[in-house]
Amino acid sequence: MNMLLIAIACGVIAVLYGIFTSRQVLASSPGNQRMIEVAGAIQEGAGAYLRRQYTAIAIVGAVVAVVIFFFLGGLSAAAFLVGAILSGAAGFIGMNISVRSNVRTAEAARTSLQRGLTVAFRAGAITGMLVAGLALLAIAGLFWYLIGPAGFAPESREVITALTALALGASLVSIFARLGGGIFTKAADVGADLVGKVEAGIPEDDPRNPAVIADNVGDNVGDCAGMAADLFETYVVTVGITMVMVALLVGAGAQLLPLMTLPLLIGGVCIITSIIGTYMVRLGAKGSIMGALYKGFWTATGLAVPAIFGAAWYALGGDLDQVISTTDGTSFPAINLVWTSFIGLAVTALIVWITEYYTGTNYRPVQSIAKASQTGHGTNIIQGLAISLESTALPTIVIIAGLISSYQLAGFLGVAFAASAMLALAGMVVALDAYGPVTDNAGGIAEMAGLEDEVRHRTDALDAVGNTTKAVTKGYAIGSAGLAALVLFGAYTADLREFGDEIGVTANLDVLFSLSNPYVIVGLLLGALLPYLFGAMGMTAVGRAGGAVVEEVRGQFRDNPGIMDGTVRPNYARTVDLVTKAAIKEMIVPSLLPVLAPIVVYFVIGAVGGKENGLAAVGALLLGVIVSGLFVAISMTSGGGAWDNAKKYIEDGNYGGKGSEAHKAAVTGDTVGDPYKDTAGPAVNPMIKITNIVALLLLAALAGGAH
Amino acid sequence: MNMLLIAIACGVIAVLYGIFTSRQVLASSPGNQRMIEVAGAIQEGAGAYLRRQYTAIAIVGAVVAVVIFFFLGGLSAAAFLVGAILSGAAGFIGMNISVRSNVRTAEAARTSLQRGLTVAFRAGAITGMLVAGLALLAIAGLFWYLIGPAGFAPESREVITALTALALGASLVSIFARLGGGIFTKAADVGADLVGKVEAGIPEDDPRNPAVIADNVGDNVGDCAGMAADLFETYVVTVGITMVMVALLVGAGAQLLPLMTLPLLIGGVCIITSIIGTYMVRLGAKGSIMGALYKGFWTATGLAVPAIFGAAWYALGGDLDQVISTTDGTSFPAINLVWTSFIGLAVTALIVWITEYYTGTNYRPVQSIAKASQTGHGTNIIQGLAISLESTALPTIVIIAGLISSYQLAGFLGVAFAASAMLALAGMVVALDAYGPVTDNAGGIAEMAGLEDEVRHRTDALDAVGNTTKAVTKGYAIGSAGLAALVLFGAYTADLREFGDEIGVTANLDVLFSLSNPYVIVGLLLGALLPYLFGAMGMTAVGRAGGAVVEEVRGQFRDNPGIMDGTVRPNYARTVDLVTKAAIKEMIVPSLLPVLAPIVVYFVIGAVGGKENGLAAVGALLLGVIVSGLFVAISMTSGGGAWDNAKKYIEDGNYGGKGSEAHKAAVTGDTVGDPYKDTAGPAVNPMIKITNIVALLLLAALAGGAH
Repeated sequence: MNMLLIAIACGVIAVLYGIFTSRQVLASSPGNQRMIEVAGAIQEGAGAYLRRQYTAIAIVGAVVAVVIFFFLGGLSAAAFLVGAILSGAAGFIGMNISVRSNVRTAEAARTSLQRGLTVAFRAGAITGMLVAGLALLAIAGLFWYLIGPAGFAPESREVITALTALALGASLVSIFARLGGGIFTKAADVGADLVGKVEAGIPEDDPRNPAVIADNVGDNVGDCAGMAADLFETYVVTVGITMVMVALLVGAGAQLLPLMTLPLLIGGVCIITSIIGTYMVRLGAKGSIMGALYKGFWTATGLAVPAIFGAAWYALGGDLDQVISTTDGTSFPAINLVWTSFIGLAVTALIVWITEYYTGTNYRPVQSIAKASQTGHGTNIIQGLAISLESTALPTIVIIAGLISSYQLAGFLGVAFAASAMLALAGMVVALDAYGPVTDNAGGIAEMAGLEDEVRHRTDALDAVGNTTKAVTKGYAIGSAGLAALVLFGAYTADLREFGDEIGVTANLDVLFSLSNPYVIVGLLLGALLPYLFGAMGMTAVGRAGGAVVEEVRGQFRDNPGIMDGTVRPNYARTVDLVTKAAIKEMIVPSLLPVLAPIVVYFVIGAVGGKENGLAAVGALLLGVIVSGLFVAISMTSGGGAWDNAKKYIEDGNYGGKGSEAHKAAVTGDTVGDPYKDTAGPAVNPMIKITNIVALLLLAALAGGAH
Repeated sequence: MNMLLIAIACGVIAVLYGIFTSRQVLASSPGNQRMIEVAGAIQEGAGAYLRRQYTAIAIVGAVVAVVIFFFLGGLSAAAFLVGAILSGAAGFIGMNISVRSNVRTAEAARTSLQRGLTVAFRAGAITGMLVAGLALLAIAGLFWYLIGPAGFAPESREVITALTALALGASLVSIFARLGGGIFTKAADVGADLVGKVEAGIPEDDPRNPAVIADNVGDNVGDCAGMAADLFETYVVTVGITMVMVALLVGAGAQLLPLMTLPLLIGGVCIITSIIGTYMVRLGAKGSIMGALYKGFWTATGLAVPAIFGAAWYALGGDLDQVISTTDGTSFPAINLVWTSFIGLAVTALIVWITEYYTGTNYRPVQSIAKASQTGHGTNIIQGLAISLESTALPTIVIIAGLISSYQLAGFLGVAFAASAMLALAGMVVALDAYGPVTDNAGGIAEMAGLEDEVRHRTDALDAVGNTTKAVTKGYAIGSAGLAALVLFGAYTADLREFGDEIGVTANLDVLFSLSNPYVIVGLLLGALLPYLFGAMGMTAVGRAGGAVVEEVRGQFRDNPGIMDGTVRPNYARTVDLVTKAAIKEMIVPSLLPVLAPIVVYFVIGAVGGKENGLAAVGALLLGVIVSGLFVAISMTSGGGAWDNAKKYIEDGNYGGKGSEAHKAAVTGDTVGDPYKDTAGPAVNPMIKITNIVALLLLAALAGGAH
């Protein structure tokens, strides 16, 4: 119980860090009147988006809560709500801080680059620590309640189901935030660019463009609120399911409680190392912004090594040689769980490095796309697609190596601990990501408020690094989602093994789950289809919503010629409202896909091939969606990032620079990459996990129905 | 034995049809002097390509034959060579006919549309019937030799390995023809367009363009020789492995020989229905060319129903109620194999219909891409990618429905018979496909020889239909490859079950192949990676080879200003030679990927997790490559076809027509779609099968080594 309280304390520290730092940030100057005006419009737009979006989520959430209450009982419904509300809170607060820090970053950049960096990064760090802190509090608090006041045994069905329901709550918010946010941000971006840059011939972030505020709101919607919800979910899912795996595989005994609490403790100590890391973000002698951010990241990662060791040592009463035996027949010394946690850290570091290679302007992939832009739009796209396909290889191999080595050390439990350790750094990673939209907005505000060129150069420099950190975070998010999903899949089979009799499964599970079972092949194919269909829906949605923005902006220009003269202020709020409505409308159908797929497959295949084959097909579906989704998501996010930076590489003066034919081709590539990397690709993460979680809850409902 | 001789006779009839029809086609007039000259250049280029390409294949083939001889013995090496040589022959003869019929089609089109259609379709039908006929002769002849003169029992290891080695021979030619051909055709196309249309501002098929002949050769290289080799391979693999499955699952007994011969007999009777079909291709009252071609296809398919029933009735001695019991525990009446064959026909028809929906100008998908072209290059590509992702859904669901229903009727044997029936129509389908390059070339010759506008309109009309038939055939090719690969995977597990003890596998196969085994997950991930990596390599290869063509053409223009004046003939042969060399160089590394992957995975995973887990990972790798490859290939071929026809739809006068901004965007989409649909996508088919065949031969080698 002590360990649990320590974990809860670490969560509280993260929240306190958030409160303390947000006071610091908000205390700095918001700049001159014009800046405050522009920022006010963005804040207002963000507020309008958040209200509408969270109202929609609340309605869906309430319906789902009732369904859960009906099938799984009040405890699970409450856990679901806790997950949903805290996930929503992390995104909501983070985004509110973000749209208030943007103008303060612009103002601070008037003093010096270091000042601008400090404000922007602290703003990101607030979101980061809130994500990690609230996620940890959600799981640790729920677990404390379940095994304390509620009096359940840690390995009981009730605890497992409640933790899964908590994860579903987080997932639901996550898929809406990711997909709705992704559609919003890219519809606004594409719409603003098409009418503004292409038709009207006015620059980006020009205040005459009625979609410019929506575009700036969109940056926060996608990379702040969206990513926060995404990693909050992955965090809750991974740590929660690792605890479930311990319960399923270790079973009642003296080791159970320490091992179930250990992932929470690891999360807790890594929050502390992350907070220390945030204070290391400082420009060095060379003035490299990326270097400053990496200093923070590497500090957090480096300190995590002794911290995790210490946590394990403390949790297991100083005896790391004790043998842990699991019900699936493996046994290993406890120290191996420390090693697998280190594997998780190594996977994180390698994926960060690989993603930077594929999306950074210093390396072959991005440069090859820039080079191909010289021969036109077509060759830019061909090379970009080739890179996006290629970029899947190394991360997959790293994940496979992590999977094999952690499995060799400690079976599926080892894989779960590796995934948990990977997620323990989420606070720091979200900080790097949420830094992005703040600097992006700061640049926009500097432009719209007509600040000095020097300031614009500083915000541009901060923003350029933001592009890389956003890409890197996406690589981390999908890599961790992949590992988390594998753990979820492991939980599905472990659950069936443990509780199969309650569901009425009597067949040998190995025969049922054998690749020779055609229903397994069918499940794999259907699972593999989901990310494709989901990606297609996401891309089409951006097209449709972007088209609506184009119509709206054209209409404003037509009805009010004063806008182009600069004499009349365009109606920013109406555009924001339109994009919000469009995004919410478009996100509903694709979101249903992962929720309904396992249920429909279970009933349809069950009707054709019998209940047991239905469950086998669902199991294979889970693996199919992971395997296929990993590739779809990595190729989209890395490919999109590479296209983006190929444009930047040309703008830096290569192959003719800005305005050249190569640049035009690169702009096309960037436009294509946008929905790839900001809508469809990242939304695949929660999709993969939601499919798995729904399947787990399906098992729980079937087991409950059989009682 | 009688049945076997009937099948052989049908194969001979197909070859006789080819000889008879090619005499007919070659007897028609090759047109005026200028036309003969142009066609001569194309023939010369094609000859140069074939010589160099088949020399390269012969060298690799000889090395592989030696390896096979060493590991699997002389019989398998001989079977391998038969497969390789006959596959090569089908492509070689087909392409030679094709480059002689193009000019005759152009000449015939001067008389009437019907005459042009007849010559072009007959040319395609020659290739089609040669593919089906030679493939059937290869398997039937080898089987006859093995169980007759050589005296092996039909279900013996020797027969199984020899049939698999035959398939490998066909596969090897297929992957080289597909990949080398795909790189050649698109490098020439992209290169010709970039310098010709874009830089020099001369129209397509302008005789002043030094790459114009290479471009025309390329059409034949990809859609005639490439597709012929691809479907020859799928035919041999599917029918051969269906026989192997019968041997593994039915075992010695009275039913064995009839059931092993039945797939051959089905192939034989469908050749006859296909030949009848070719005579039904005739313009109706409405003058619809597509309608005329479909008349032939539907006749062949419709007649196949009674023909297959009759074949089964005859093969099983008139008793279709007899119960067939397989070693995997299923038993069913023999009539069920007739039903599953009909399922194969239904899958074929549905996939043809779905592919036409996704790539035809009359339907939503293509029109949506054309519409998106109005807002620029970027939106054209985004919509095209969305369609390419979406287009995977319906074919997958059809394949799943076919898989489940045929499995329900007759277990894995049912799936194998469904796949065999699907392939039985290969002759007719290849005819439709090989028609494409003939008409494409005819248009080019009409342009270059300066024929009347009216002729050009007729060849354009023939060519437009060719685009659709080429797309439809690709859908059929990947769909059948997917089913064939599933049968191959079934053979891998059946082989392990039957001969596991020879290899030293003692573990329970179900436990080994269970989704809960992490090495299975690793295999699935690695398998899923292969099509991505392979696709990336193919796309990059086109870029590189296309760049070389650009350099070459620029060089010719620079060194010889007379070319642009039209006073000097460009050096066509040098460009053809350059593309040939580049294509051959580029095809080697990607081709090795599927050959080496199963072997490397077996040894690496075997070293880490033990021999049995190595075999489990290889099994999962096979399924991973099928699952992932199916989606990659369908999305690429359908997406590419849709982009192509979106351009055509705009050229037909929609959204501003030729020369409009929308048209420019659509040209970009077409350029991107080219390597998608003609290089990377189709080459995935042989890649999937080669991985599976190598794995089967690996088992044979391991079993041999353990003797």
